[in-house]
Amino acid sequence: MAPEVLLAPYIKTLSPYIPGKPIEETQREYGLRRVVKLASNENPLGPSPKAVAAMRRALTSSHRYPDANGFRLKEKISRIWGIPTDEIILANGSNEVMDFAVRTFCVPGDELIQGQTSFIAMRICAQIQGVQVVEVPHAPQAENPFSLDLDEMLKVAVRRPRAKLVYLPNPNNPTGASIEISRISKFLSDLSASRPDVLVILDDAYWGYSNRKVSDLNALRARHGNVLLLRTFSKIFGLAGARVGVGMGPRQYIEPMQKVRMPFNVGTLSLVGAEAALSDLAFVKKASKLNAIEREKWYGFLAQQGVPYIPSDGNFVLAHVQRGCGKSGLEVFELFLKLGVILRPVANYGLKEWIRISVGLPQENRFAMSVWKKQLPKKDP
Amino acid sequence: MAPEVLLAPYIKTLSPYIPGKPIEETQREYGLRRVVKLASNENPLGPSPKAVAAMRRALTSSHRYPDANGFRLKEKISRIWGIPTDEIILANGSNEVMDFAVRTFCVPGDELIQGQTSFIAMRICAQIQGVQVVEVPHAPQAENPFSLDLDEMLKVAVRRPRAKLVYLPNPNNPTGASIEISRISKFLSDLSASRPDVLVILDDAYWGYSNRKVSDLNALRARHGNVLLLRTFSKIFGLAGARVGVGMGPRQYIEPMQKVRMPFNVGTLSLVGAEAALSDLAFVKKASKLNAIEREKWYGFLAQQGVPYIPSDGNFVLAHVQRGCGKSGLEVFELFLKLGVILRPVANYGLKEWIRISVGLPQENRFAMSVWKKQLPKKDP
Repeated sequence: MAPEVLLAPYIKTLSPYIPGKPIEETQREYGLRRVVKLASNENPLGPSPKAVAAMRRALTSSHRYPDANGFRLKEKISRIWGIPTDEIILANGSNEVMDFAVRTFCVPGDELIQGQTSFIAMRICAQIQGVQVVEVPHAPQAENPFSLDLDEMLKVAVRRPRAKLVYLPNPNNPTGASIEISRISKFLSDLSASRPDVLVILDDAYWGYSNRKVSDLNALRARHGNVLLLRTFSKIFGLAGARVGVGMGPRQYIEPMQKVRMPFNVGTLSLVGAEAALSDLAFVKKASKLNAIEREKWYGFLAQQGVPYIPSDGNFVLAHVQRGCGKSGLEVFELFLKLGVILRPVANYGLKEWIRISVGLPQENRFAMSVWKKQLPKKDP
Repeated sequence: MAPEVLLAPYIKTLSPYIPGKPIEETQREYGLRRVVKLASNENPLGPSPKAVAAMRRALTSSHRYPDANGFRLKEKISRIWGIPTDEIILANGSNEVMDFAVRTFCVPGDELIQGQTSFIAMRICAQIQGVQVVEVPHAPQAENPFSLDLDEMLKVAVRRPRAKLVYLPNPNNPTGASIEISRISKFLSDLSASRPDVLVILDDAYWGYSNRKVSDLNALRARHGNVLLLRTFSKIFGLAGARVGVGMGPRQYIEPMQKVRMPFNVGTLSLVGAEAALSDLAFVKKASKLNAIEREKWYGFLAQQGVPYIPSDGNFVLAHVQRGCGKSGLEVFELFLKLGVILRPVANYGLKEWIRISVGLPQENRFAMSVWKKQLPKKDP
């Protein structure tokens, strides 16, 4: 028998990420055939058809190591998103870029600043490295009780010398809420003036779903020297299974991060698929349009059911089921799971009363709403 | 402009991994059409056909996140390699398992023990985390000047309290040399008796190519409580582009490593391909046989050319070109590159006088040998 294992001290207390329940696992465990997954903010239309075709062509070269430099994908990103190739880092999902940033710029005891209820992957990356997460309470607004308090985040950054990173997901997951670009821009300028050594990780995962102009956050990135912009191929491009994330920022940040990156961190098919997806504009447009229409249907449905929700700039909606239906998010999750609808409980964000619904295909949303109507009757007002 | 960037101290001096030159890059840079790559110990037969078929079927589900638990692949590994599923961790290539081990069991200032010229990925993982690499000099033997000195490694482990990990690749890359299983077994027992808190990372990447019984290292793993066995799908299964590695060891080591693993570190197609490859026994047999025959041809050729080499248990041969041809490894590499043959210089291992040749298909090896004969005439004895 092996002896007691000595762990790095920050690993002991670490809570790992809880992923959305996979369809196959749900079918297996509940003996179900039809399962609708509205749990992981995936693109319900499937992967970009151009990506599928490109990956199919590359299948037989899977015996070769991937291009460690990601030459072709970076060239294409450079052309399409307007950024030099040496300001781009490719990753095994954008959460790996978070990991690179923490490992490159922090030592144990350094600090990451973020708002409450910010996407949890960033927190986990920090904790693995012994980096303290400083959570700034929300500044509740009319439409969104979870609005990030940028003024307070700035103050915290100024007063805490060991703060090295700020995490700013926009829109945020799981709330779906965005901050106006002008406010972020001011925050970046103010921070740069007072703490030029702090890097802001601006997470643009839901790029393409919001109503804002597509280039907004990327344009911000180009104007500020203290921004690492994250994009992912997991959302609107429909390649969550392929694991491709992108970090974009000033050369002096990207260059050292490349040292921490394992050379073959992105697989061959993933590189090829992402490259093809980038030019699949018809698919992106279709996905964005479908999402806007179906998200609106969810708003209407929730309002009709008397369930408060937060207007979303993503492909998901956060709904206050405790107030609307008298059940916790976990209760709703379990109730729906048995009936073949996977939703996402968010108690791990401290949001026990809420549930997150990913926007699905019309027939998937209809099915989920019909289950809802039967299982969660409207509360008397 | 961004200010001077503050880096974690161990990142500054880090030298990243130097991968084998990709075929496409070589074609692009040298304007070549025919390029033979004998540089990255890939399977020259291509990917397992069963894996290709399975990945093709799964292409259209690339919009879903992968199964974070790798349920099906772990079940299959469990059945075929005889190990409980909770003693298995899946990774984005086996180098990611090395990374997990360092991050889970070490803090900056801890130590990793390995032999000189051991596979460099392990050293890089250690350096990223500020873990010191203690290199133990070789105990040269008749056939192999780079034989690992297990007796000395044991002594070093006993005398250095901050040693946490030992890295033991068998056969080693880039030398190709193996240590007898009985010696490793004794080393593990002795180490366990004196330093029960030290974990040995036993790298079985070239499993399937050696003459030893297939189950050898895995059987050792099952008998010892201080072993983390690494296997990869990049070599004999022909899936280097898919990035799938496996760590196998006692539960108390695997469990905390799962916390450091990002949930979607292995992509959907990769999981599915690896699962299918595991039952492609005909392919593994064919690859192993081809490699044995072609490796023998390289031995014969090198002997005939008067170039000393190290007998190999892998799908590659390390040749002393300085002694045999009066040229350094880098010189040979550059000479061959221009003519469309990619070999692997190993100066980054301190082996400037050597070059590593991956065993290719018969026609690839013939082509490389014909280039060799023309470019590197036999030295007068």
